[in-house]
Amino acid sequence: MNYSSSFIPTLREVPADAVIASRRLMFRAGLLRKLSNGLFAYLPLGLRSFRKVEQIVREEMNAIGALELKPTVVVPGELWKESGRWDSMGDALLRVKNRLENDFVVSPTAEEAFTSIVRDELSSYRQLPLTLYQINTKFRDEVRPRYGVMRGREFTMKDAYSWHIDEKSLDETYQAMGRAYRRIFKRCGLSVIPVKADSGAMGGSGSEEFMVESEVGDNTLLLCKNCDYAANEEKASCAPDYDSSADTANTPPFEKIETPNVKTIDELCVFLKTEPKTFIKTLIYRALNVELDLTKAPGCEKLERKRTSPDAPLVYPEAFFAAAIRGDLDVNEVKLAAALKSSEVSLASDADVSRLTNAPVGFAGPVGLTALPLIIDQTVTAMNDSVTGALEKDFHYKHVAFKRDFKAWMVKDIRTVKAGDKCSLCGGQLYAKMGNELGHIFKLGGKYTVSMNVKYLDENGKTQTPIMGCYGIGIDRTLASVIEEHHDDSGIVWTMSVAPYHVIIVPIKYDGGMKTAADKLVDELAKNGIEVLLDDRNERPGVKFNDADLTGIPWRVVIGDKGLAQQIPQVEIKRRSEKENQMTELDKTAALLTEKIREELAVLNS
Amino acid sequence: MNYSSSFIPTLREVPADAVIASRRLMFRAGLLRKLSNGLFAYLPLGLRSFRKVEQIVREEMNAIGALELKPTVVVPGELWKESGRWDSMGDALLRVKNRLENDFVVSPTAEEAFTSIVRDELSSYRQLPLTLYQINTKFRDEVRPRYGVMRGREFTMKDAYSWHIDEKSLDETYQAMGRAYRRIFKRCGLSVIPVKADSGAMGGSGSEEFMVESEVGDNTLLLCKNCDYAANEEKASCAPDYDSSADTANTPPFEKIETPNVKTIDELCVFLKTEPKTFIKTLIYRALNVELDLTKAPGCEKLERKRTSPDAPLVYPEAFFAAAIRGDLDVNEVKLAAALKSSEVSLASDADVSRLTNAPVGFAGPVGLTALPLIIDQTVTAMNDSVTGALEKDFHYKHVAFKRDFKAWMVKDIRTVKAGDKCSLCGGQLYAKMGNELGHIFKLGGKYTVSMNVKYLDENGKTQTPIMGCYGIGIDRTLASVIEEHHDDSGIVWTMSVAPYHVIIVPIKYDGGMKTAADKLVDELAKNGIEVLLDDRNERPGVKFNDADLTGIPWRVVIGDKGLAQQIPQVEIKRRSEKENQMTELDKTAALLTEKIREELAVLNS
Repeated sequence: MNYSSSFIPTLREVPADAVIASRRLMFRAGLLRKLSNGLFAYLPLGLRSFRKVEQIVREEMNAIGALELKPTVVVPGELWKESGRWDSMGDALLRVKNRLENDFVVSPTAEEAFTSIVRDELSSYRQLPLTLYQINTKFRDEVRPRYGVMRGREFTMKDAYSWHIDEKSLDETYQAMGRAYRRIFKRCGLSVIPVKADSGAMGGSGSEEFMVESEVGDNTLLLCKNCDYAANEEKASCAPDYDSSADTANTPPFEKIETPNVKTIDELCVFLKTEPKTFIKTLIYRALNVELDLTKAPGCEKLERKRTSPDAPLVYPEAFFAAAIRGDLDVNEVKLAAALKSSEVSLASDADVSRLTNAPVGFAGPVGLTALPLIIDQTVTAMNDSVTGALEKDFHYKHVAFKRDFKAWMVKDIRTVKAGDKCSLCGGQLYAKMGNELGHIFKLGGKYTVSMNVKYLDENGKTQTPIMGCYGIGIDRTLASVIEEHHDDSGIVWTMSVAPYHVIIVPIKYDGGMKTAADKLVDELAKNGIEVLLDDRNERPGVKFNDADLTGIPWRVVIGDKGLAQQIPQVEIKRRSEKENQMTELDKTAALLTEKIREELAVLNS
Repeated sequence: MNYSSSFIPTLREVPADAVIASRRLMFRAGLLRKLSNGLFAYLPLGLRSFRKVEQIVREEMNAIGALELKPTVVVPGELWKESGRWDSMGDALLRVKNRLENDFVVSPTAEEAFTSIVRDELSSYRQLPLTLYQINTKFRDEVRPRYGVMRGREFTMKDAYSWHIDEKSLDETYQAMGRAYRRIFKRCGLSVIPVKADSGAMGGSGSEEFMVESEVGDNTLLLCKNCDYAANEEKASCAPDYDSSADTANTPPFEKIETPNVKTIDELCVFLKTEPKTFIKTLIYRALNVELDLTKAPGCEKLERKRTSPDAPLVYPEAFFAAAIRGDLDVNEVKLAAALKSSEVSLASDADVSRLTNAPVGFAGPVGLTALPLIIDQTVTAMNDSVTGALEKDFHYKHVAFKRDFKAWMVKDIRTVKAGDKCSLCGGQLYAKMGNELGHIFKLGGKYTVSMNVKYLDENGKTQTPIMGCYGIGIDRTLASVIEEHHDDSGIVWTMSVAPYHVIIVPIKYDGGMKTAADKLVDELAKNGIEVLLDDRNERPGVKFNDADLTGIPWRVVIGDKGLAQQIPQVEIKRRSEKENQMTELDKTAALLTEKIREELAVLNS
């Protein structure tokens, strides 16, 4: 391909709103342009790399027996009403009414569409397991789309779905997907961090996220310095840092103390000359759609359960809880929500806190608390001489001990793990990184097959409901992450597997002997299946070299009169990732580069 | 690929709502399933053929130097407001508001998106001509989506756009596109009819439609029995069928006759004992957004021009016209609208007719008509002794002659051409066919570049506006049309180039020696790049044969114990399009089929 007819509008200047390297370089190297906030157009050079990522994903999906389908991007709203996500999905779901007032959704994922297809075709257990996928346009109505295609409104996702007769079969496909994902990222040259993740709005349990480190990542990851442990902050656990053998033998009876105008733990520390660790912090939470049975929970006797839709499970639309944790720690609301099987938890309003604790905010405590269920973090079980709120303005208790002075309705790990905590696997120190999610694999269980009424006949002719898994990879994000990981001050440094071209040939002038040599080399390389960009522009060598560096093509060949004039004509070859260049015989260049490129691809694909 | 793991849910029964062969067979052969009205999902077998059509289109676009881009499917409404199509496009345009109340469009075409990209990058005439394209999802909010993917709501279109410094350059690309389109359809094995078409809502002049014959086609085509002439009824012309040398030497002066209760031409024929040919039929039309200058047109003195948007041309929002034509012919409203440069013409209301002709409907005529401009069809110029309405209830004129008794404001070909009319090129007889449009190429001129303010500097450093062309092909329609043209009572008969697989291998039983032979043949063919589907199912041979016919794979190989037991083991091969099968040596089968398949592909691609 000739550079002059390729529409590669490189930019010298850095776009003003480009915070991260991939956004900056995709624009500067002429891969991408902006249509509007969060909507981008791939230009020819960017599309070549995009298609290569797609193809790697497709090959690895096909290799594990997943079958590619192509449903529509715009799907009937009816299907989303069946699954319940029409209501539960929130505002990120782009809902559309057409001229006939039919409801549609611009797909953000496609559990419903795929499940509806399988529902119609599935009759026998013999058809299972079945794994289907698409690589297709998705839309998420981000309020603040940012960082180019790293968080755009429209994007391309590979989304796969599988159906199974039992957990064992689901686990086999889930494990195969995990292996396929590792291969995909390896082939792209990406260092991913596989982490156990909260499965959030997708429902179900058993999931793994594939993260890349990013200074602007959406996720905080906790990793162990010693072992492989990696977890999303939302789910991370750590080794106990308390003495679980502590008893109350030496603890005086608890007593009320006056603490005028003292509300925060920091103020209390000063007032009582002690440390946050000695406090039991008690927080009041409001939880929505609680699936847990609360019939025997304190203060919940009058709560009634409802269904949000005919097929949805019974839930308490609203309930309040107290959560107690050691004073130096924070409650992790995602863990708390998971413990309560709630769709959302948040701190209760001041009015609710006053109503439920009989005191203003700042004086809640576990002793004598009867108006609502008390959940305590595991750390509290070891607290045998603590300070707590006294459920009364300007008063606290001291010498409070768990079990002796109060009981818990539920004991659970609800702490937010932080850098410096100890690894739950090996005791090593944890450290934190920001990460972006490139892929995610989930065990969904019966979430969609139950609500959408999918059935098959088992070996005994009995009607059964299959269980499901789902598996996504963001194509755009994966591409952008390759650039994030592989670039330098001069531009992109493509991995061979996703480079738009393998070789860029730069004749000092595209004329005379240099033109002849360049054209010959293009032909020879093309015959070997090597993808070549020929810089045929009438530009200064410096401009061409800069664009070659910026666009990041792995190998550069410079053809000059001087080299060609040698007894055996020579050209200069240079690896984009290395500083040094070398001279090679013109006639041997095609064979040499072909060998090196094939070797590199073989290593990536091995 | 093994049949048993391919998800090919064939159907014995014909879907109830399947009117046309492609809809019926795409469902029965397991290529497609319905998500809802007008929204379809391609299953694995259908997607393979779909991708092949896409790839043929891509190759032919690349071959003429068009560059592939990938803008988004959902595009900013702002761009459509700039071009004016946000308002003018009508209800087929799916408009969406997101949570931030931003306007978006789910793209039906992408003139705006591409023009906005080029606007930002274009600076010099050296960058032109430039041709860009995408193969991407489109949405048209059809009120009555029908015939499967032949007229779905969501579909995939290849849409290309080109920018030029002048008409000559535009014409070169336009002609190259026309040739590429002919190659695309030839490679798919489709008989297309290229016709001159009205460019309708796209604007501009100079366009060609690529049609396939279809009993449920959207278009009426007129074709010549003798020559290549083919035209859409909306634009078709024909040879004159009147004596243009007719004079008024022998015509008596016109006279008024009483015609009580006679209003239609048929009634008049009976009353006057004559033929429709002798009448001048005069119809009153209401035209919207007329761009033509009417300052000197009768009755239009008081009309004012306006702009629908700041960049739009000046138009008369509403104007009325009389159109006169020979009594046996009909006025073609598309031609009439084109003559007036109007966005829409329709018959005036009875009240408007009465107001403008001083008589009820049925008595309009050209003589003495001064309240509005008179457009006459060419046929009227030869009418030297005619009957017309007299602009008075229950009265007509006879012996009316053009020029002598009335003058025309405009003479134009506005007749609807019908089967039986004579070809304007060769005089041969025209016949009619129903057709569906697969592709369309247009010269747009400055329609988008003017309204969207695209500029470049010419050789002399002067600011200029480029002109544009646009070029579309429906991928789904093209695929469905292949099936329409190539099927029989048993199923699809794929063209080799778009067949999902080249060969289906059917072992009578996938076991023992038959399994060994089948596996070996699969390997040999795969090594040659031949795509093979192996029917490994535990089904009766009859079921397998029926599915092989239904899915239409071009070559079938049947492997049975009897053939294998021959001294030289034999298998049966059969071309899907032929009745006869033949026995061949097992060891020579791969080479034989490879040769035949390559030959057939070479002929299609030649």
